[in-house]
Amino acid sequence: MAVEALFTPRSIALVGATDKSGWSISTLANLRNHGFPGPVHLVNPRGGTVHGERAYRSLTEMPSPVDLAYVMVPSTAVLGVLREGAELGIRCYVILTAGFGEAGPEGARLESEITAFARGHDLTVLGPNGNGYINAAAGITPYGLPIAQPLPHGSVGVVLQSGALASSVLAFAQARNIGISLLTSMGNESVVTVTDVLGYLVGDPATKVIALFLEAIRDPAEFSRVARLALGAGKPIVALKIGRSRLASHTAQAHTGALVGDDDVIDAAFRQLGVIRVRSVEDLIITSGLLAAVGPLPGRRIGVVTPSGGAAEIIADRAEDEGLELPPFAPSTVARLAEIVPSFGTVQNPLDVTGYVLIDRTLLGRALEAVTADPGIDLVMLLSEPPRSAPPDPSPTFALYSASASRIAASPVPVVVVSNVLTDVTEFGRTVQRETGYPHVVGGIEHGIQAIGAAVRWSRARARARALAPAPPAERRPPGASGVWAEHRASALLSAAGLPVVPSQLVRDAEAAVAAADRFGYPVVLKVSAEGLAHKSDAGGVRLGLTTPDEVRRAYHDVIATTRAHLPGALVQPQRGAGIELLVGVVRDPGWGLTLAVGLGGVWVEALRDTALRILPVDAADVRDALTELRGAALLRGARGTEPADLDAVADVVARVAGFAGTLGDDLESLEINPLLVTGSRVEALDALITWRS
Amino acid sequence: MAVEALFTPRSIALVGATDKSGWSISTLANLRNHGFPGPVHLVNPRGGTVHGERAYRSLTEMPSPVDLAYVMVPSTAVLGVLREGAELGIRCYVILTAGFGEAGPEGARLESEITAFARGHDLTVLGPNGNGYINAAAGITPYGLPIAQPLPHGSVGVVLQSGALASSVLAFAQARNIGISLLTSMGNESVVTVTDVLGYLVGDPATKVIALFLEAIRDPAEFSRVARLALGAGKPIVALKIGRSRLASHTAQAHTGALVGDDDVIDAAFRQLGVIRVRSVEDLIITSGLLAAVGPLPGRRIGVVTPSGGAAEIIADRAEDEGLELPPFAPSTVARLAEIVPSFGTVQNPLDVTGYVLIDRTLLGRALEAVTADPGIDLVMLLSEPPRSAPPDPSPTFALYSASASRIAASPVPVVVVSNVLTDVTEFGRTVQRETGYPHVVGGIEHGIQAIGAAVRWSRARARARALAPAPPAERRPPGASGVWAEHRASALLSAAGLPVVPSQLVRDAEAAVAAADRFGYPVVLKVSAEGLAHKSDAGGVRLGLTTPDEVRRAYHDVIATTRAHLPGALVQPQRGAGIELLVGVVRDPGWGLTLAVGLGGVWVEALRDTALRILPVDAADVRDALTELRGAALLRGARGTEPADLDAVADVVARVAGFAGTLGDDLESLEINPLLVTGSRVEALDALITWRS
Repeated sequence: MAVEALFTPRSIALVGATDKSGWSISTLANLRNHGFPGPVHLVNPRGGTVHGERAYRSLTEMPSPVDLAYVMVPSTAVLGVLREGAELGIRCYVILTAGFGEAGPEGARLESEITAFARGHDLTVLGPNGNGYINAAAGITPYGLPIAQPLPHGSVGVVLQSGALASSVLAFAQARNIGISLLTSMGNESVVTVTDVLGYLVGDPATKVIALFLEAIRDPAEFSRVARLALGAGKPIVALKIGRSRLASHTAQAHTGALVGDDDVIDAAFRQLGVIRVRSVEDLIITSGLLAAVGPLPGRRIGVVTPSGGAAEIIADRAEDEGLELPPFAPSTVARLAEIVPSFGTVQNPLDVTGYVLIDRTLLGRALEAVTADPGIDLVMLLSEPPRSAPPDPSPTFALYSASASRIAASPVPVVVVSNVLTDVTEFGRTVQRETGYPHVVGGIEHGIQAIGAAVRWSRARARARALAPAPPAERRPPGASGVWAEHRASALLSAAGLPVVPSQLVRDAEAAVAAADRFGYPVVLKVSAEGLAHKSDAGGVRLGLTTPDEVRRAYHDVIATTRAHLPGALVQPQRGAGIELLVGVVRDPGWGLTLAVGLGGVWVEALRDTALRILPVDAADVRDALTELRGAALLRGARGTEPADLDAVADVVARVAGFAGTLGDDLESLEINPLLVTGSRVEALDALITWRS
Repeated sequence: MAVEALFTPRSIALVGATDKSGWSISTLANLRNHGFPGPVHLVNPRGGTVHGERAYRSLTEMPSPVDLAYVMVPSTAVLGVLREGAELGIRCYVILTAGFGEAGPEGARLESEITAFARGHDLTVLGPNGNGYINAAAGITPYGLPIAQPLPHGSVGVVLQSGALASSVLAFAQARNIGISLLTSMGNESVVTVTDVLGYLVGDPATKVIALFLEAIRDPAEFSRVARLALGAGKPIVALKIGRSRLASHTAQAHTGALVGDDDVIDAAFRQLGVIRVRSVEDLIITSGLLAAVGPLPGRRIGVVTPSGGAAEIIADRAEDEGLELPPFAPSTVARLAEIVPSFGTVQNPLDVTGYVLIDRTLLGRALEAVTADPGIDLVMLLSEPPRSAPPDPSPTFALYSASASRIAASPVPVVVVSNVLTDVTEFGRTVQRETGYPHVVGGIEHGIQAIGAAVRWSRARARARALAPAPPAERRPPGASGVWAEHRASALLSAAGLPVVPSQLVRDAEAAVAAADRFGYPVVLKVSAEGLAHKSDAGGVRLGLTTPDEVRRAYHDVIATTRAHLPGALVQPQRGAGIELLVGVVRDPGWGLTLAVGLGGVWVEALRDTALRILPVDAADVRDALTELRGAALLRGARGTEPADLDAVADVVARVAGFAGTLGDDLESLEINPLLVTGSRVEALDALITWRS
């Protein structure tokens, strides 16, 4: 596949060009108006004049073959165009035509023919059912909808699974003066996929940030691979992924499966891959624009400088929601600010330099300089923006913003400039920015603080990704791995792998049970055990707190009576005391592979669905993070006299369980420990269940 | 106080007018440029010429007294101006001057003098330390900062506790073409308060919606009174109240107090008063603009009509977050839409009419007509907006939007028009709206869906407020109400009021305890009881599950030994079985009065702080709502084999407890039931504690 060639043709043919089609008119106008320097040929089977220019009857009739064919012919004629083009050596195609997979079985059949032909002849095809792309960086715009002027050039690459959103994205980027490198409307992805374009953008020097609109992730493994490449290359991916409300149920096994919607898996995967998830087009573009302008942010300690007490208070409220800190200024900063801020103001973080800025126009800049020098601050949020309209004499304005621009450029920490509210950057505002080198202004406190929070999280994920070097574990699939492995076999496997499991002995008669109990010491637990028996406690197959040999004997006969299985037996285990019960499940997601779910046991998992998810592989730090996400996390810190859980010990065991599950091979469907009993730093599996794909 | 006169003067004096002050320049320019028809006199102690006009040396020197004095003199000279004005019969003042309460003790002293003088002479004073107001409806603009042109006129009344936010509010309202009736910058509220202005706006015919920025609610009782008036008058209040992150601790008593931050009380109060709480200036203005344009919304079932699949999917995701429903269309609607939507589209709610709108410009309008006729839809959200820039021939655009405007006007249900993204309404967009009568366009899906959600909740609160007629309860303060009433007295009081309390008997020796146990039947509970003893279980003063007379005897001596109180005794109660334990607390908030907190007992309240709050009075429906807000609400519906709680029975008892607490008089500090045991429909207080203010 030649994705780079697709996006950088030197000559283009519009196949199916006609005066009757708005798409045809727009595509030609876009190519002519946005600077495409090469030849554009029109092809129409009837020949003649189209859009006031000569039209060729076929690709063959053209004076020379082109690099890219933009195809608008009826769906049944598309394959013929590809055939003709392939013979001429045309390798790249955009297919605008709709009526394929999205339109029913007949369209799907046509689409699969096209895909097969393209693959067989190594053609690079974008679409069908997509509007094309806008390579703003290179001025190449084979795109079927009108593009409003001016097209903002810049370093945000946009990939859209919904063509109709392109207009919204372009309009908003233009309003906020955020430049685009490449915008691609993917269509049906029959040949070129979202991940292909992502891979291209990771290597594209014109692109610093990637903005994605996703309806579905078709190949999670490939998405993960490309997202890791992007993170490694320091190019943030910001994604608006829809489908949160449709909690499609997860591959089910035991309890764990039913508790996890697919979207939760995507949330977990994005977090681990450093993909920033947003919920609106505004946040998609504003967050991308911030990262393109400022790059990684070194930490979450923000100094805030504003000319408005109200804005300072709003920022203080919202920063906490976004996981940002507003630490107190260092004494040296306080002393310096005390000489800058008017006496009726208050020196604190967030800093309101007061409305006196209207009298002393240098006040904000001097305060900014003091705050950027604070040793405890990772970045500064400056509330400022050029005026919306030109004053009668604009020269003092230009001088003021030039001075500010220099101060910001000289800052030892990143300065994020944010406007009070989300409005368009006006013509005058753009002029001031251009003339004075004043930096990018993030659109409004509300979206700005969310974007800063996201950028800080991304920067942390990036730093962490560089520290990690994940090695795929060697496979150690055990013999006889099929069906359901109930407690006895599952626990033995975990125990043999060095994981902490409560001791147990399988017995086949009452006296052996008593002997085992005598050996463990009383009280003990007795559980029925038989091949393929998953849910023993539902049927009364478990007896707790047995304190004498007689109780053990009676219990043995009772639990054996609950099953009709062949060759039943019972497990004897020492009874453990009180503690915190966790559920640990490793379940195979059909797209993302093995996923780890941890939660507090009992009602927390069953009634409240309070689990935290991670895609494998994970380390102990990932597990610790996951545990703190639980709504019931406070219970782990000790409540009502329970001993607090040693989170490091828990995270270590859970990460080892996950790592072990990762070695069990592709036939592992799920591994569940329920409960994992935690008493301080003692962590022990009391029951386990493994399910294999047969 | 003459708030109406303050906002409608026919003549104004600017006292302290000087060429050296930007405020003075701006105020005069605002009055001259925004249509104030009456005389404006300038006053400066040096006389001469100011701003190119004659300045009088004092108010007395003016040819005639004015209706309003706008005061910009130094802080120490303000009182003198009020004295002079009062003698001349000038009743209304705006004081721009800063340096009062906000600047320290000396300023506070000056301010209290002004307040006392104003009160003594019945002067209506806005400020000090405020920029004045903009009465856009009447063209009266005594306001100290530049007002950008054009000032958007309309029906949103804005009240701001932060002056600096006014510029953001005005800029954003102007960008979104949302009109203002009155904007007031409150300053220090030394005489005229936020609630005074609120009261005025409730009666102001030019104002339909009130937008508030609040730092503090100084008089919650008065705020409640005015908010109820507004709700009764059908005027929504939208409030951006800061201070969420500073969880100032609540008046403390027992457990309950420490669990509740002040901001949670404000959240509860706002919800009950129908005050819409937002978190950004954008949401403040967009929500106000929506309500001003569309009014109350009849329900939460939305039909969505869009020309974009991506937008439809984003809306589907976000609607759920905002408590909105997108029900399937009725069969008749589906049939009608099947003839309108192109065959490659899908007829469903949300409806994507497809990009074919670019070919058939009537498509969106015809689909809208079909959806608005659906019998199961309360309102329609239409994704549409006038084009941002004028096409070469704008007449088809005008015709198209005229036709749409007529269709929307003819709709049997409210139609909320929303743009895809939040950008400014362009000049051409405004022209199309003005010329064609096209309705208000809400700014973007993200803020729009939040605004619709808020408007629906407000509409429901309004309907409910009209159904309720709260009668203040008669006071029945019991004799001896002081200090802490431990279980014996508290339970007896509740029981006498007809509330369900576990039976109990106070005994003073072991044999009486056994007799009581025999009477109740075994097992029983024994609790130490003594005057002023609040936390008996901490000291081992409670014995559970006593099954024989001997155990009761031993337990009696044990629990008595845990206290050194004078005249100790013990309570004997029948032991109750398992069930769901709730905590019910009624605590006096210093501002809002008695508040009800309900939560699940144990770790839920102690470790997870999971309580729901309501300001009294409440009815059973309020309590039911509160219970469903709990994070652990799923437990009430039955989990792990527990019998589900009869929510109606629980809500009835809790509402009666709250109602009873409301009769106990102003000395009640708190009444706590912990636990309230729920077993199906059996609801019973097992322990109670009352604290009186001494």
